[in-house]
Amino acid sequence: MSKNLQILPLGGMGEIGKNLTIYEYGNNMIVVDCGVMFPENDMYGIDLVLPDFSYILKNKNKLRGIVLTHGHMDHIGALPYLLRDVNAPVYGTPLTLGLVRRKLEEANLLANSDLRPLGEVEHLGPFRVKPFPVAHSIPDSVGLVIETPVGSVVHTGDYKLDETPAGGRTTDLNKLKKLTPEGVLVMLGDSTNADQPGRTETEAVVAETLDRLFKQAKGERIIIATFSSVLARLQEIIYLAEKHNRKVALTGRSLVENIELARELGYLKVPKGILVDIHASTPAEDLVILSTGSQGELRSALNRMANGEHRQVSIQPGDTVIISGGTIPGNEEVVGRMLNNLFERGAHVIYGAMATVHVSGHGSREDMRMMLEAVKPRFMIPAHGEARHLHLHAKLAQETGMKAENTFILRDGSRWLTDGKKAWTEGGLELDEVYVDGRLVGEIGELVMRDRQRLSQDGFVVALIPIDKKNKLSGEPQFVSRGFVYLKDSGKLLDEGREQIRRHHTKGAAQLRRALEDFFYRETQSRPVVLPQYIQS
Amino acid sequence: MSKNLQILPLGGMGEIGKNLTIYEYGNNMIVVDCGVMFPENDMYGIDLVLPDFSYILKNKNKLRGIVLTHGHMDHIGALPYLLRDVNAPVYGTPLTLGLVRRKLEEANLLANSDLRPLGEVEHLGPFRVKPFPVAHSIPDSVGLVIETPVGSVVHTGDYKLDETPAGGRTTDLNKLKKLTPEGVLVMLGDSTNADQPGRTETEAVVAETLDRLFKQAKGERIIIATFSSVLARLQEIIYLAEKHNRKVALTGRSLVENIELARELGYLKVPKGILVDIHASTPAEDLVILSTGSQGELRSALNRMANGEHRQVSIQPGDTVIISGGTIPGNEEVVGRMLNNLFERGAHVIYGAMATVHVSGHGSREDMRMMLEAVKPRFMIPAHGEARHLHLHAKLAQETGMKAENTFILRDGSRWLTDGKKAWTEGGLELDEVYVDGRLVGEIGELVMRDRQRLSQDGFVVALIPIDKKNKLSGEPQFVSRGFVYLKDSGKLLDEGREQIRRHHTKGAAQLRRALEDFFYRETQSRPVVLPQYIQS
Repeated sequence: MSKNLQILPLGGMGEIGKNLTIYEYGNNMIVVDCGVMFPENDMYGIDLVLPDFSYILKNKNKLRGIVLTHGHMDHIGALPYLLRDVNAPVYGTPLTLGLVRRKLEEANLLANSDLRPLGEVEHLGPFRVKPFPVAHSIPDSVGLVIETPVGSVVHTGDYKLDETPAGGRTTDLNKLKKLTPEGVLVMLGDSTNADQPGRTETEAVVAETLDRLFKQAKGERIIIATFSSVLARLQEIIYLAEKHNRKVALTGRSLVENIELARELGYLKVPKGILVDIHASTPAEDLVILSTGSQGELRSALNRMANGEHRQVSIQPGDTVIISGGTIPGNEEVVGRMLNNLFERGAHVIYGAMATVHVSGHGSREDMRMMLEAVKPRFMIPAHGEARHLHLHAKLAQETGMKAENTFILRDGSRWLTDGKKAWTEGGLELDEVYVDGRLVGEIGELVMRDRQRLSQDGFVVALIPIDKKNKLSGEPQFVSRGFVYLKDSGKLLDEGREQIRRHHTKGAAQLRRALEDFFYRETQSRPVVLPQYIQS
Repeated sequence: MSKNLQILPLGGMGEIGKNLTIYEYGNNMIVVDCGVMFPENDMYGIDLVLPDFSYILKNKNKLRGIVLTHGHMDHIGALPYLLRDVNAPVYGTPLTLGLVRRKLEEANLLANSDLRPLGEVEHLGPFRVKPFPVAHSIPDSVGLVIETPVGSVVHTGDYKLDETPAGGRTTDLNKLKKLTPEGVLVMLGDSTNADQPGRTETEAVVAETLDRLFKQAKGERIIIATFSSVLARLQEIIYLAEKHNRKVALTGRSLVENIELARELGYLKVPKGILVDIHASTPAEDLVILSTGSQGELRSALNRMANGEHRQVSIQPGDTVIISGGTIPGNEEVVGRMLNNLFERGAHVIYGAMATVHVSGHGSREDMRMMLEAVKPRFMIPAHGEARHLHLHAKLAQETGMKAENTFILRDGSRWLTDGKKAWTEGGLELDEVYVDGRLVGEIGELVMRDRQRLSQDGFVVALIPIDKKNKLSGEPQFVSRGFVYLKDSGKLLDEGREQIRRHHTKGAAQLRRALEDFFYRETQSRPVVLPQYIQS
């Protein structure tokens, strides 16, 4: 039995999303986080990307537990897909488990799941897992100290070092130090903002800005779009509404559900009578509408308002609309369109650089430096980032005095090993991206994705070629096509295409396809997917 | 004959791109700028978008001239498409005309074109056009004072108010004031940065930052990617190379061409012997490579380096790569991937917020306020922006004391009229987006675009249904499909699909299509394009 600790990330290394890290020692492993990734713009038709679970499934007898750092989808969203096939206790803080419970309920998996509150120490095989509080954009977030037979690991999870967080709970570096009296062997640190200089602003600045905007909007309706999970900010807004004598109405399913959950669990204090139904006819100047849709999501409440399709809320000239959420890279165009539509309807929209109505939930370079200096790990593995973030985080660690050879840039599937003295990487798994498309999980592969990419650019042409038993043309070839050109207006092109078929059809489908592809490219400089189909009659 | 001035924008109102504004009085019109727009991410397969020229073509006998403010593609790129069908003199500054000349040459239109240097005053029918210098990210940019029978127009073009621009040429507000002694009837003002608070930083800051980075990179190669048109910055970099005893090599066609053109025309001073061939074996520490590709464009020089596919330059650990160009919204994902690849190859990459290696060529809110206060127009039309920028610019004008009813938000095709005293909008044209896709100009319409959108998400299924003369199935139906699911692995799905065909094929293609669409959606929650084809035998 190996006396080494193995750290094997299945996600989060080289991407922001699908965070999942395996810690393995001998015949024991634990999983930290189990998240999804939201698709990039050119992952056509894909709803979600999951980590490749094969290694866990192959070793499920070793699995002692799954520990969650917080309730964001990129840390818990893949649990319903893993728990279909794996039975292990899941540990988390109350709010995190509340959010997990809802996901498992939707997937009809709750009854068979084993959810356990994360205590001060959890003994999972040879691992002792000890949480410490961190400030992040969702309450009840923790980092983990994982004691192993070869030394202590610090797994920061997502964090910022906010000394005045809206929820009152900051990253507890003192507790972290107390939990690691013998020092830290290796730290896996959040790299999200490794390209952002300085400190991340405190959430308190957002509260101040919103207070000022509430004053300025006197007499007009206020609509605020934010992430439904930023509960501390939602709390601030509810307090501000009370202060400025406004009622609060909610729109957007996830927002309504999260606020309900957070109230039940005591994470949100809602003064009596302040919440009103979105259907109620509250005078505009007495109302704050809290809405989903800060990312311009097509079916979100705010986007429906922007498009004039929201059933209860129609944007009026004079409405103040506040986008209290940073634009996630890749969403700029859809967010931009939504903003345009809101302005066109006469709203006064506050977004982007115009006022500090949002701050990141992740620490910037100086926060990261403070964390590195507090933890002083022997080895350091930048986590939770694309390659550029990981590299910049490693360089930052080197600025704090770490040797370059003690910082490790891993990929998903890398196997990092340590015997407590030295550390190395070894082998590594070949992982697949697991795409979720509607009901299809893992059935959409690279080939289908490449086809979609090509179809999106130039469409397709299916050529139907009637032939007799002697392989002679027995009728006029036909074209079926979409996304290429208007067939109706392209008589000449199609006639010439048929001529190509007459000339090349005896050479077999592969050569005919190439001939047609070349022909269409010469004529149009487009490359539709061409599929010749011989039809025997 | 109408005694009103009509301003009719065909582009640039509600988008950043395809700038084109028509000024019309009686039987006379002039066109200011003639640009293209680069497609957004969901304009699948589209290379460029052009303004809809129909109004110009219908009235080409009225056209007295085309006046260009500067040489960026969103201001000159559509000229080759307009000059195919229209013969009118084109006025511009020497660098602008140099860039136009190259575009027209490529399109085989140069011989028949009438390019004229823009003088201090151009008499074009009843219009007197007088340029004034503006600071922008390409030299030789001008704004225009257009004297008309009903009063003076200020058409700012793209500008910033940079007191220390790298090229030494700043926006000449004094000249602008001297050109408008009787005041300004209406201003069309650049709105690009209406959501950016404060002033736009001066180009001099970039020079300082680059100087510092040159010092830090001592002993290592420097690679700088920037826009090939930011000639003032290229000049700075060449001076810095000289100062730090480095040679400069160029890679990227547009960069090589622009530097050649700018040298010929005297806009760029290149010290003797400083330019070296990219093939030359200059020691790394003595070299600066200037490259295209700051937007992560697939085939750009820098992206090829990032992918290890550049013929002459292979990224080495220790190389300093500077991305001296802001990311245009919509390009974040591709730029991010390129940065990741550069880091993975060991480069030290400077980008984004990490250092001021780029500043915008457009003024921010305080620059715009200064322009408004200098011009003091009676009427104001925000131009060159998406709806949000136009609205914010109008509100900014109102902050400087203009009445709301004197600021006008137009759309492409809006007809804005003034008799010199009052102003109003009237009618307005219905314009098409004119898409360029390979050789196809204007032939790709909304329907093809919608098909591509749908194909990109879920692919297609063509069902081939052999029937006899009595409309009975005469053989086994077949499916041809791409981008949906792997047909090979989907035997059961296809068998059931064939069953659907057996059940519904007599009801006609439309109903069969619906039945198949519903069936596939039920089974997969995907909506491929379904096309049933009956094949008579």
